[in-house]
Amino acid sequence: MPLIIGIDPGLQRTGWGIIQHNGNALSFVECGVITTDNTTQISERVLRISNEIGRVIALHKPQEAAVEETFVNVNGQATLKLGQARGAILLTLAQAGMQISEYAATLVKKSIVGAGRAEKNQVARMVQILLPGCSKHGPDAMDALAVAICHAHHSRKY
Amino acid sequence: MPLIIGIDPGLQRTGWGIIQHNGNALSFVECGVITTDNTTQISERVLRISNEIGRVIALHKPQEAAVEETFVNVNGQATLKLGQARGAILLTLAQAGMQISEYAATLVKKSIVGAGRAEKNQVARMVQILLPGCSKHGPDAMDALAVAICHAHHSRKY
Repeated sequence: MPLIIGIDPGLQRTGWGIIQHNGNALSFVECGVITTDNTTQISERVLRISNEIGRVIALHKPQEAAVEETFVNVNGQATLKLGQARGAILLTLAQAGMQISEYAATLVKKSIVGAGRAEKNQVARMVQILLPGCSKHGPDAMDALAVAICHAHHSRKY
Repeated sequence: MPLIIGIDPGLQRTGWGIIQHNGNALSFVECGVITTDNTTQISERVLRISNEIGRVIALHKPQEAAVEETFVNVNGQATLKLGQARGAILLTLAQAGMQISEYAATLVKKSIVGAGRAEKNQVARMVQILLPGCSKHGPDAMDALAVAICHAHHSRKY
């Protein structure tokens, strides 16, 4: 049964979540948050994110990856940081030979809650309803599971 | 004799240049520009950049890497693209176990031309004077060689 890894990229905190997609049924496999030390070099931080994502992929062997599209912030430095985390994550997934799909945050929210402007805690609550057994790992992991669910819905449609 | 790779990151065009640093003498080794197809997925583009940088590193085995600090553009989408290229490049260098230094564009220009607001063609002209034999590979490769020269100057000082 195909496994999907969903990722919510961030230099400080990257959420990841794996779900199993079996026809109409979705089930929770694992999720977590990768944090990096903001006193270290960017290169060390992206290496840590990449190594952790690599470890998760090696362990669970998901076939498909879904990545949340980065919100372009008015703050250029914040956008640059997100971009660097995102570039490292996309590279890691491509190096692993995975199929990668990208979804805008508004589409993810709409797929889960039914509204593109839903609050983070509404998304988390719906994810916990849709994936019984998913333990609480903070909002970044819940967002990552939401991206994976969004991908499951969309790949079913097309 | 230590080799330095300088990199000027960009999603569309990434310049790279390798110089040899032997005490006071610098010499040109090789340079080039990696271009990517903007009709393909970001993940494919960062993989292509990474593979090309990896090929250059495997061939020349530089010990140190110097990367130009990304200019934070007023255009958020442009900043995001640069950030993604940069994150993939930093990850590639870190995966290769390299020592990585970062230099602001203004410092690079100041090191080469003597002014932080020098034009691109002034930088290119000075690089060609400082590194006899460096063939013309376009401004991105010249910028990358300039970053490598900047690193050579600064690592001599400290």
